[in-house]
Amino acid sequence: MYIHAVSHYLPAQVVGNEHFTQLNGLASEWIIERTGIEERRKAGPDENANTMAVEAVRALEEKVDLSEVDLIVGATYTPHDTIVTLAHVVQHHLHIPDIPVVSISSACSSLLNAIEIVEGYFALKKARRALVVVSEHNTAYYNEEDTVSGHLWGDGSAALLLTKDRQSPKDLTIHCVITGGAATSGKATTAVVLKPLERGVIMPHGRDVFSNACQYMPKVSQQVLYRCGLTLHDVDYILPHQANLRISRNVMQTLGLPEEKLISNIQRLGNTGCAGCAIGLSENWDIFQKGQRIIVTVFGGGYSYGAMLVEV
Amino acid sequence: MYIHAVSHYLPAQVVGNEHFTQLNGLASEWIIERTGIEERRKAGPDENANTMAVEAVRALEEKVDLSEVDLIVGATYTPHDTIVTLAHVVQHHLHIPDIPVVSISSACSSLLNAIEIVEGYFALKKARRALVVVSEHNTAYYNEEDTVSGHLWGDGSAALLLTKDRQSPKDLTIHCVITGGAATSGKATTAVVLKPLERGVIMPHGRDVFSNACQYMPKVSQQVLYRCGLTLHDVDYILPHQANLRISRNVMQTLGLPEEKLISNIQRLGNTGCAGCAIGLSENWDIFQKGQRIIVTVFGGGYSYGAMLVEV
Repeated sequence: MYIHAVSHYLPAQVVGNEHFTQLNGLASEWIIERTGIEERRKAGPDENANTMAVEAVRALEEKVDLSEVDLIVGATYTPHDTIVTLAHVVQHHLHIPDIPVVSISSACSSLLNAIEIVEGYFALKKARRALVVVSEHNTAYYNEEDTVSGHLWGDGSAALLLTKDRQSPKDLTIHCVITGGAATSGKATTAVVLKPLERGVIMPHGRDVFSNACQYMPKVSQQVLYRCGLTLHDVDYILPHQANLRISRNVMQTLGLPEEKLISNIQRLGNTGCAGCAIGLSENWDIFQKGQRIIVTVFGGGYSYGAMLVEV
Repeated sequence: MYIHAVSHYLPAQVVGNEHFTQLNGLASEWIIERTGIEERRKAGPDENANTMAVEAVRALEEKVDLSEVDLIVGATYTPHDTIVTLAHVVQHHLHIPDIPVVSISSACSSLLNAIEIVEGYFALKKARRALVVVSEHNTAYYNEEDTVSGHLWGDGSAALLLTKDRQSPKDLTIHCVITGGAATSGKATTAVVLKPLERGVIMPHGRDVFSNACQYMPKVSQQVLYRCGLTLHDVDYILPHQANLRISRNVMQTLGLPEEKLISNIQRLGNTGCAGCAIGLSENWDIFQKGQRIIVTVFGGGYSYGAMLVEV
C-alpha cells in the first residue's frame, strides 16, 4: 500500500496567542511554554469540516488525477453534518458514483483508523485507489474562553491518495499499520469530550490525556518497528499527533531520539485533531529523501492510538 | 464471515401517533397511511447513543461470551459524544484493551458499511471476532414539531457479534456485502441533513429521498444476488432500511416479491436510523429456518446504500 500524494488546506485567518491574552489574560509565553503553540488557523464563517475537506481535495486534484478513486474514507470529530458527511460531499464534488463512502471518528487517531480501513478494502480487492480525507473544525465546537483548552485548537484539513500499487518512485510505502483502543486506561471516557448537544470540546482531565499519550505513542511506535524487523536506528522522522509540543518532545525522549527527527506543526497550527499528522505529511513531503523512514503515531480522546511506518 | 449472535435494546417510553396529533394536528391515520408508523420509542433523559449502545451489548453478553472480541466498530449519526464515541464506551464496558476501535457514520447505511469494514479486518487477519454496535438517538436531534419529519424518528440500538469462522449451526453466513455511495444522485447533499450546531435532523426533500431509496435498494439487492449466482427465487426475506413502510413495499414491488417476505419493524419503532435493520435481524432471529436466505438492504442520507445476503 502506498501514499501516492497528499495535500492540505488551512483557512486564512491566523489567531495569535495575543487573542487569548486579551480574552482571558493567558500570557503568550505561558501558552508557548505549556503547549508550544504560537498561532493557529480559524475557519471563516462560511467554512466547516465539509467545505475544508473539499478544499483539501481540490488541492490534491492539482497534483494528481482523482477520477479513478474507488473508495472514500472521511474522518472528523467536529462534523458539520453527521448525515451528509464530509465523505459524501467529497464524493459529490468528485462526481464518482457507486463507490464505497464512509466517514469515521476515533477522535485524533482517525487518520490511522482510516488508513487501516483502506488497507482492508485493498485486501478484499474492493478498492485500489482510495481517498482519505481528514478535516477538523475545532473552532466550531470549542469555547475559546475556556482557559484549560480554548487556546489549543486549530482548524485544517488534508487529503491523501492511497494506492494498492506503486504509482511513482516518490510514493511513500506503508509497511505496517497498527491501531488500538485504550478506552480501558485512565480517564479515557471523561478526559476529553465533545458532546454536540452541549456544544463544546472540553478537556477536564488534561493530565491524564498527557500521560497516556506519552505512554501509548512510543509503545505503538516500537510495536510497528518490531513488526517490520527494524529498530529506532532505522527511523529518520517521527510525526506524532500534534496535540502538544511537550507531548511530542516527551515521545522523542522516551524513544531516545533527537529533536531534529521530530516533525511538528503545532507551533503554527495548534491541535488540528485528526488532520494534524496528515497536514504534517503534506507540508514535509518534499523534504523526504529516497530511503528515509517516517513513523506516524497518533493518540486521541476516547484513548485510541496507532502508528504506521512509511518509507520513501 | 458469520453473524453468530445479535441483540437489541429499545428504550421503555412508547410514543404513539396521538402525541403528534396533540402537538400539531397530524392525524394518526394520516401518519400510518404515509409512513406505516403507529408508534416509536423515545430514550429517557439519562439515555443517549452511548448508553443505548452499551445496553445492546449487555443484552448480547447474556447470549454469548464477548471476552475475546478483537475489534469494535460502532455507528451512529446521532452522537452523544464525537470524541468518546459509542465504540470507545463499549470497549470501556467490555474491559478489553488494545483492540482496534472505530465509530463510523454513513447515515442510515452504516450497518453495512460497518460489516464491510469488519470484512476487511478479517481479510487482513487483524481480527476474528468483531462487535458491530449501531445506536441511534434520533429524538436528541429531531424537532418533534416538524410536521415533515418529526413523527418519523425512533430511538434504539443493536449489537452483532461477527466471526470469521462458524461458531454454531445457527450462525448466519454472510455471502456477500456491497456498499456504495450515491452522493452524485438527486438532492443527495441537501435532502436529509443533521447539522449538530443547528441542532436538528430535517428532511427538506423527502420525495427525493423516497425515489432514490426505492431505486437503489432493489438495484443493489439484485447486484448482491448476481454476485452470489442466485436469483430472487432463492430469497426468503427482504429486510430493507426501516425508513418508511411505503418505501419498503415499493422495494418489494420492484423486486416482484410478496409482502409476506418483507421484514418490517417501522410500525412499532419508527425510523431508527442505522439500527433499524440490525434490530430487525435480532427480533426475527428465531423465525429464520435452516437454509433460508435474507437480503438486508439499506439506503441513507448523503445517499449511501448497500446490501448483503445472509443464509441460515
